[in-house]
Amino acid sequence: MSIEPTAPPTPQLFVDTALSYQKTAALKAAVELKLFDAIGAGSASVQAIAARVGAALRGVRILCDFLTVVGFLEKVGTEYRQTPSTAKFLNSSSPASMLSTMRFLAGPEFLGLFLDDPTSYVRNGGTEGLANMTPEDPIWVTFARTMVPFTGTAAEATATQVAGWDPKPRKVLDIAAGGGTFGIAVAKKVPESTVTAVDWRDVLGVAQENAERAGVGSRYRTAAGDAFTVDWGSDFDLVLLPNILHHFDHPACVALLSKVRKSLALGGRTLVIEFVPNEDRVSPPIPAMFAFMMLGTTQRGDAFTLSEYTAMARDAGYRSATMAPLPPSPESVIELHL
Amino acid sequence: MSIEPTAPPTPQLFVDTALSYQKTAALKAAVELKLFDAIGAGSASVQAIAARVGAALRGVRILCDFLTVVGFLEKVGTEYRQTPSTAKFLNSSSPASMLSTMRFLAGPEFLGLFLDDPTSYVRNGGTEGLANMTPEDPIWVTFARTMVPFTGTAAEATATQVAGWDPKPRKVLDIAAGGGTFGIAVAKKVPESTVTAVDWRDVLGVAQENAERAGVGSRYRTAAGDAFTVDWGSDFDLVLLPNILHHFDHPACVALLSKVRKSLALGGRTLVIEFVPNEDRVSPPIPAMFAFMMLGTTQRGDAFTLSEYTAMARDAGYRSATMAPLPPSPESVIELHL
Repeated sequence: MSIEPTAPPTPQLFVDTALSYQKTAALKAAVELKLFDAIGAGSASVQAIAARVGAALRGVRILCDFLTVVGFLEKVGTEYRQTPSTAKFLNSSSPASMLSTMRFLAGPEFLGLFLDDPTSYVRNGGTEGLANMTPEDPIWVTFARTMVPFTGTAAEATATQVAGWDPKPRKVLDIAAGGGTFGIAVAKKVPESTVTAVDWRDVLGVAQENAERAGVGSRYRTAAGDAFTVDWGSDFDLVLLPNILHHFDHPACVALLSKVRKSLALGGRTLVIEFVPNEDRVSPPIPAMFAFMMLGTTQRGDAFTLSEYTAMARDAGYRSATMAPLPPSPESVIELHL
Repeated sequence: MSIEPTAPPTPQLFVDTALSYQKTAALKAAVELKLFDAIGAGSASVQAIAARVGAALRGVRILCDFLTVVGFLEKVGTEYRQTPSTAKFLNSSSPASMLSTMRFLAGPEFLGLFLDDPTSYVRNGGTEGLANMTPEDPIWVTFARTMVPFTGTAAEATATQVAGWDPKPRKVLDIAAGGGTFGIAVAKKVPESTVTAVDWRDVLGVAQENAERAGVGSRYRTAAGDAFTVDWGSDFDLVLLPNILHHFDHPACVALLSKVRKSLALGGRTLVIEFVPNEDRVSPPIPAMFAFMMLGTTQRGDAFTLSEYTAMARDAGYRSATMAPLPPSPESVIELHL
C-alpha cells in the first residue's frame, strides 16, 4: 500500500485550461506587434518597448508580464529580456524564426476549426477539416510556406543522420514534400544526391523555390499529384515520408508504404518522420497531444505509436521498424527495414 | 559569477502556447459531452465512456489521452480515472462544479473578445469589452449565474474569517454582489447579520434567488443601481468588495472606497477580495495572469498589487491595508484599516 501525501483539490488547472486560449491570444499579439524583435533589439523597459512597437504602456506592460508568467520572457526588476528559446524561435531575424508557423497554427482557420464546435469532432470522431481538403487546396500552399521553420530542426537532424550513411543515397524521394524542408536538407548534406519531391502542383512551386534558394535547384525534380496514385519513378536509395502518414488510417498508410517499398532500389532505405507518442499514448506531451490536432483536422489521422507504425510496415511488406529521436525537435525518425 | 547549466533552446514552449487554444477546446468538448460525469459514474474504458456519452471511440480515446496529458485524468493501462480536483470541480453533481463557469469563461463572447484581434487591445491598452458594458447589460446576469462556483471557495474562506470576529458584523454591505456568493456566505455563517446587496436590478434577481435557496432570504436586502452613485444606506459593520475594484483605475477605485468608508458604522470593517499578484507582477501565476483578462475585457482595470491597493485605501481616507490568502482559491482578502 502506498502512502502518498494527497494535496487538497484545487481549481487551478481548471482555471488555467479554461483560459488557455488567452495564452494563444497573447502570443499572437506579441508576434504581430514584433514585441520580441523590440526586446531582442535592446528595448527592456515597458516605456522603451511600447515606443518601439507603437502600443499603449498598459497593453505592453500587461502583455510582457503575461509572457513572463508563461515563460517567454524573464523579468528583472521592471525590465524584460528574452529567454534563449524566444530569441531563437520568435525573433523575425533569426534563421529559426517560427513566426510564419504561428500565423498558420493559430490563424483564423485553425482557431475556427477547433473552437467553433469542439463537441462535434469528438462526437463524430473526426472532421473533414483542413487536412482533408480537396486536391490542390490552397491551404497546402500556405502550409508549405509557413511550416518550413517548424519542420526545420527535424529535417536538419534527419539529414545529418543520412549524411553519415555508407553508402550515401544518390536517388531520394520526398513524399508530401510541402516546403521541401526534408529533401532539401538531405540534398545539401549529400552533394551526390538528387531529390524528387511529391506534392500538389502549387505546393511544389514553393518547394522548388526553396530548393533554388538553398542552391540545390539543379538536383531537384518534382512529381505533382496525389501521393497514392502519382507515378513518382523508381529505384530510390532513400524514401522520406515526413509528416504524411499521420493524416491517414492504418489501411491507407499500408497502401502508401507498399507503394514506397516497390519504388526502392536494392538496399534502398525508408524513413518516416513523425510525432510518435510512447505506447501509453500520453507521453511525451507534444507527440501525445498531436493526436488531438489530427482529431480536429482529419477524418482518421492519428499520432501513431511505434508498435502501430511497425504493424503498418509489416502489412506493407517490411520486416521491422526502429526509431530514434531528433532533438531538439519533438519528432522522431522511424526507419522501416526490409 | 554563476555557472548555470544552460539547456539548448527548444521550440516546445512555442508549440505548447501557439496551440494552447486546443486545451480550451478539449475541456469545452469534455464538459459539453459530460465526459467527466461518465468517468465519475464508473466508466473507465474508451468503450464504456464512448457508449455513455454517445460519441465515437476515436474521439473519446484521443480526447481522454489529451486530458490526461493536460492533467485532468489519470491513465492506468487503457483505463481512465479522474483526479480529485476533476471530481470536485468538473462533475455536474458536485456542489463545487465549475461547469457553468466554463461555459462563460470559454464561451463565444470571451473567445471572440480575446482571439479575434489580440493586437488591438494590446496596442490600444484596453477594450470596451464585456466588463465595461452599459448599465443593466444582460452579460452581468449571465456572469452572476455562472460565476457562483468560481467565487465559492473564496467566499467560503472569507465568511469563515468573518465568523471568527468579535464582535460579529450585524449590518453587511455586499458591493457588486453578482450571484450574491460572498454576502450569502457571510449571512449563513453569521446568523445575526443582515446583508444588503448592490448590483444591477436583474443581477440582484439572481442574488435574491440564491439567498432564498440558501435559507437567508429574510435577512437579505437589495439596492439596485450603479455602485458609484446608488444610495445603499449607512452604518455598515462590514462592507464586502468582492471582485469589483479590478475593473477600474486608481481614481475610480479611490472614489468608490471613499463612498464605502463614509458608509461604515463606528468600528465597521472593509474587505476587498481580489486576484492580487506579488509586487513583481509575475507571480503567482493565476493572479498575475488575471491582468491580461482585464486588458482584454476592460478599459482601465488591472490585477493590482497590495501596495497599489494600499495607495488607493490611503487616498480614500483609510490608514493601511493587510492581506491574507484564501486557500484553495487563487484570490486573497485585503482588509482596509481606518
